[in-house]
Amino acid sequence: MKIRKIKIKTRSKNYQIIVGRNLVSIINKILKDNNLLFEKCLIVVDKNIPRKSKELLYRRLNSKKLFKTEIAPSEKIKNYKTIDKIHEILFKNRFNREDCVISFGGGIVGDIAGFASSTFKRGIKFINIPSTLLSQVDSSIGGKTGVNNKYGKNLIGSFYQPDLVISDINILGSLPKREIICGYAEILKSSIIENYDSFLYLDKNLKKILNLKSPFIEKSILKSCNLKKIVVEKDEKEKNFRKVLNLGHTFAHAYESTLGFSKKLNHGEAVILGIKSAAEFSYQNKFLPKYKLEMILKHINKIGLIPKIRKFFKKKDVKKILNYMKNDKKNNSSNINLILINDFGKINIDFQIRSSTLEKYISNSLN
Amino acid sequence: MKIRKIKIKTRSKNYQIIVGRNLVSIINKILKDNNLLFEKCLIVVDKNIPRKSKELLYRRLNSKKLFKTEIAPSEKIKNYKTIDKIHEILFKNRFNREDCVISFGGGIVGDIAGFASSTFKRGIKFINIPSTLLSQVDSSIGGKTGVNNKYGKNLIGSFYQPDLVISDINILGSLPKREIICGYAEILKSSIIENYDSFLYLDKNLKKILNLKSPFIEKSILKSCNLKKIVVEKDEKEKNFRKVLNLGHTFAHAYESTLGFSKKLNHGEAVILGIKSAAEFSYQNKFLPKYKLEMILKHINKIGLIPKIRKFFKKKDVKKILNYMKNDKKNNSSNINLILINDFGKINIDFQIRSSTLEKYISNSLN
Repeated sequence: MKIRKIKIKTRSKNYQIIVGRNLVSIINKILKDNNLLFEKCLIVVDKNIPRKSKELLYRRLNSKKLFKTEIAPSEKIKNYKTIDKIHEILFKNRFNREDCVISFGGGIVGDIAGFASSTFKRGIKFINIPSTLLSQVDSSIGGKTGVNNKYGKNLIGSFYQPDLVISDINILGSLPKREIICGYAEILKSSIIENYDSFLYLDKNLKKILNLKSPFIEKSILKSCNLKKIVVEKDEKEKNFRKVLNLGHTFAHAYESTLGFSKKLNHGEAVILGIKSAAEFSYQNKFLPKYKLEMILKHINKIGLIPKIRKFFKKKDVKKILNYMKNDKKNNSSNINLILINDFGKINIDFQIRSSTLEKYISNSLN
Repeated sequence: MKIRKIKIKTRSKNYQIIVGRNLVSIINKILKDNNLLFEKCLIVVDKNIPRKSKELLYRRLNSKKLFKTEIAPSEKIKNYKTIDKIHEILFKNRFNREDCVISFGGGIVGDIAGFASSTFKRGIKFINIPSTLLSQVDSSIGGKTGVNNKYGKNLIGSFYQPDLVISDINILGSLPKREIICGYAEILKSSIIENYDSFLYLDKNLKKILNLKSPFIEKSILKSCNLKKIVVEKDEKEKNFRKVLNLGHTFAHAYESTLGFSKKLNHGEAVILGIKSAAEFSYQNKFLPKYKLEMILKHINKIGLIPKIRKFFKKKDVKKILNYMKNDKKNNSSNINLILINDFGKINIDFQIRSSTLEKYISNSLN
């Protein structure tokens, strides 16, 4: 059983990401190896995880003071009320900062549990066991936590690094294809940011990766985590360089927000549509050459299951989409800041665009 | 006009504390000198500040996009609702992370504005202009922010360092005596933590300090800030050593919580009662020699205006006080952790006490 490790160093905390098969079975050993000791533990568990996997974790944790709370994840419950529910359990059972919160679930559960951990008595130990491909390659690295409000996604939150991330490949086996594609969106994004070779590796092995074949899936997860690691270590609090990771996300968040976080379009699908929009917009503004745009679009078509943007929006939605883009965390002036693609491995993080130009593009893309 | 500076270095941020007279008048210069530029600015202002001082700040800030919100500070409004109110202004006016929140007020306003800043888009620029002696010597240094909940004080919050602290002595002139004594509580605490000489300096110059005479008041503020600086730099997130600063505070928070944060007992008075309790308890457990206990008690008597603990509580409150002490953030086991005094300059941060022993002491202190 091969276990791969990535060591993350940030200004506020150093921690490990562990990737491999059957890791939940040996969680006690992993905790000991990482010097993570605690008296009480609250597991915030994702309702979508199969009962067998949940019970394996409870059994193997082998802790006397184990508390559990289940969350049915949706962007709609990603709010203060859910944070309060978690805090209530921690306060009622007299948790202190040396105790621990474990998130066992997808990105939504991780974001909620992470934010609740960061604000409980100003910070309790936090371990993340991401249960989806998306959370394994993305949200579990980088310390972003948060909840939504009426102005948009993740607008209330904190930077809070976990003490450990355990990515168990076995958990992915029970995921539906649509969920795997979700995670694949971030893997694709990372490859475009990294270089042409990374993109070609994905283009060549797409089917094997989507079917979770070893060592292709492990290699893809590690490559994606490693890219994010390099970026986050350089710029933990997203002052500048880290913006590169938001490729496709300004569009994606606006699409999701406009649909009120409907299940019709999940986060990964929105990111793929966002990458598509960013690539097309980069081409139209003479950054990305046409044949490279076509490579990206062809690859996205090969993934399958990705709907067209005009399936979701009407002309009257354009203003709404634009407003969400203006309110994005990454904007720091009245113009809209877009992350564009000059080439594979060459990302333009500081493109300022007037909202009228962008409005025209979005409007046309709905035709 | 002498301006004194303390440079604070923490893992997450480096910033300055500036102490002097008439600093609000030259705020634009101070901001420029500290490289703090921003487009929009929200001032969270304390209702208790005289109109003249508020208007001086607004005028001298000389910013086009200046927003204001006034807070009538009380522990009762230190909650999510007030955080939401601040966030609402920031979202509605499309603030981004490079814009700025300025707190102009006492500790409650600073804690609220700081917490709101830390969770708005995961962190916006934050400048603190403390307007009370208490906040100048205590809450403005160290990055603790937070709100209360039904379980106690400051139990929801974050560690978030400001970008700058401006302590203007002039603002203190309008404070009632009871407010000055409040801040003095922390100055006294610092001196006991530091050494015998520091305590003697206060004992000798008590009247001049309480009357805000130069250079005694400046010297006292700086000494107190410096002690906190040394401690915070060593241990930003209160893993261990920083606990020393909680001398008297476990008692104080329990007293305040039991009274429902009533105005009858303000925070500084509670801290002085807490120091008294910690000193007495240290003596009873054979840590502090009797003559040193008596020096501390005599000094507290000289301050004046400090009520007796039995004025506020009845026997039936003992269990309640004890429960709040158990739920204190600083506890990390089922025992209660107390910070006790071995001597001036010698603080015992890891004294574990059974709650029955403590119950007996509190019960007796009400006689």
